[in-house]
Order: sequence, then structure tokens, then C-alpha cells
Amino acid sequence: MAEPVPTPRRGRRPAGQDTRADILAAAREEFVERGYEATSVRSVARRAGVDPGSVRHWFPDKARLLTATLGVVEIEPDKIVQQVASGPLDSLGERLVEAVLSVWDHDRGETVRMVVPAVMADAELRRLLPQFIGAAILGPLVRALDVSDAPLRTALVASQMAGLMMTRFLVPVEPLASLSPADVAALAGPTVQRYLTGDLAR
Amino acid sequence: MAEPVPTPRRGRRPAGQDTRADILAAAREEFVERGYEATSVRSVARRAGVDPGSVRHWFPDKARLLTATLGVVEIEPDKIVQQVASGPLDSLGERLVEAVLSVWDHDRGETVRMVVPAVMADAELRRLLPQFIGAAILGPLVRALDVSDAPLRTALVASQMAGLMMTRFLVPVEPLASLSPADVAALAGPTVQRYLTGDLAR
Repeated sequence: MAEPVPTPRRGRRPAGQDTRADILAAAREEFVERGYEATSVRSVARRAGVDPGSVRHWFPDKARLLTATLGVVEIEPDKIVQQVASGPLDSLGERLVEAVLSVWDHDRGETVRMVVPAVMADAELRRLLPQFIGAAILGPLVRALDVSDAPLRTALVASQMAGLMMTRFLVPVEPLASLSPADVAALAGPTVQRYLTGDLAR
Repeated sequence: MAEPVPTPRRGRRPAGQDTRADILAAAREEFVERGYEATSVRSVARRAGVDPGSVRHWFPDKARLLTATLGVVEIEPDKIVQQVASGPLDSLGERLVEAVLSVWDHDRGETVRMVVPAVMADAELRRLLPQFIGAAILGPLVRALDVSDAPLRTALVASQMAGLMMTRFLVPVEPLASLSPADVAALAGPTVQRYLTGDLAR
């Protein structure tokens, strides 16, 4: 597919935070216009008027680029997937819940409370978010399981995780909001496990 | 800012439940058309054809007015509780999921998409919403079960339901977003059932 060639935003500029901000602005435009899958480090670089090496200097990969545009700089999807995937298959759900909650908890939900309402209020971002979660985190995990109904399983897991995010940080419901990630993982892990590997009655 | 002057729905009317229903209907229209921030008790009163004091007689403030609009669209908490509670105990979770999703689906999520972002953006409403859900729907159901850990079970059910709301209407994830309430109930019902009546490993 031929890619449109956007006009660089400006001419030469000094390296530094300005470049990083320009890259982020270009990334957001790319993600919104083309979707997560079709956007690349190269296409972001082209739009920002920098070379791809400069993008990678600030953002090692496309996932980090998207999380940064959302303001969620601490998420390293590959690391989460690796951490969750290694270990017994029958406690995969519990590991997934604990790993994701630990990321959200790291700043006591401050990032979640900042990002989620912004995403909710923006129709483009609402479309982008599931693409990212599917492509960067849940998708690789579910594909590795080689189970039937992968998209449905991914969506069901997303539903439980999204609800935990809501009830812990956005519309806090006690005692759930105050439990440790490990305690919540023990409670909700079997749910996620069934969605990932269980028999899904239809 | 000059506000548009909508035509009052009717002339004078007797005080009472009719007035309350008219105010709620007007509030819903205001919230849908103008958004939460731009709506005021005065603008709702004008649209309903009553004076602001009459609105405040029923709803002390705008926040209470918005949570009350959650009840405008068919939500009759008592009826949902009754409907869900009657039937075999072991399919309680499935009945709860189907009943709640049917309410949200009734206008294809329009109310959900209107209310939730407004609630997210407002710290006061974020505190109010769990109180409403706990007091009106999940609380009575869980209390009727006479199980241990009632608040935790209520919170866990809320987490799955909140996530289904998100992934069906706000950040739609397919195929979950397009399934019928009955199909989703078959998939997520066992989760809610376990949260309601199951053994919760801690």
C-alpha cells in the first residue's frame, strides 16, 4: 500500500525535548488517522520530519510510542507478556491479573485516572485503545495459547480487566479498591483463566 | 453565554410524580444535547417548564439529577432485582448479566455513552455511582443471598459488569460488543455466579 507523504512539521531543529514532543504529536496523528496496525516507527518519523533512528532513540518500539502518546510511559508490553507467559498454564489468569494491576498500581492509579477519562472523551482514541491492547498485550498471549475463539477470549479478558480498572481507580468500590494486586489476582484470576483456556458455553 | 430557550413541554401542571418525570426527561435531553458541564438546574427547569425551585425540590443538585437520569431509561432497580432473584439459584449470575445488559442495550448504549464519560470526569459523581449501584441493585441481591463477604462479592460483580459496559459501549471490543445480551450472559454468567455464590479463594 502506498503511504501518503505528510509534510514535515518544520525544518531542522535541535535535538531534545522539542523533538520528543514533535514525535509524540506526529505519532498521535498517525495512530488516529491510520490505526495502530498500519502505523510504523518509519511513518511516524516521516510525519515528524526526523529519521527513524531519532524516533527509536526516544521510543524503542511502536507500543512504547502509543503508550507515550497516551501519557502512560511506564508500560512495557513485551515485558508484561513475557512475565505472564512464563509459569504454569493453569495459573496464567492469576499472573495476568497481578501483572496488569501492578502496572496500574505503581503510581496508585494516577496515570489511569488521567488517561482513561481523556480516552473516553475522544472517539478516535476509543477506537485506538482496543487495537493497541489486542495487538500489544492480550493478542500475543491468547495467540500463544493456540485456543479456539481467540478474539472472543481476548474480549472477555479485556472486559474483566477493564472492570477491575474502573472499580479500583475510577469509580472505586471497596473492598476491591484497597486489596493488593495479589489478592485481586487470587479472586479474579480464575475468571480470566476460564476466559483464556476454559470451555466457553455459547 | 446565551442559552437557547427550548419550548416548555406543557403549561402548568399539578405537582407530584408527573412533574418529577418531566424534570427527568428534560434533564436527559439537556445532558444529551449540551453535555454535563453546560447543563444547569436552571436550563433543565426551563426545558421542563417549571421553576428551578421545583427541580431542586426533587433533585438537590445537578449531580443528583444526572444519577437520576440513569433511572429514566427503563431502569427500575426493584424490578431488576425481583426478576433476577426469581429462578434457580445456580443461574442467578446469568440472569443478572442478561437483565443488566438488556437495560443498557435498550437504546443501544446511548445512555451509557452519555452518562459514563460525564461520571468519569466528575469526582463527586464517581463517588455517587457506586453508592447508587450498591444501594439500588447489587446490594439487595447479595444481601438476599445471605453469603459471607457480601461487600467483596458486590464489588467483584460490579467489576465484571463495569467491564462489560466498557467493552460493549465505550471502548467496543468485538466480537463481545455485537453479541446479544443472552449470549454474553451465557459467557460471563458463570463469572458473576462464582462472585455471588462461589468459594472465593483469598
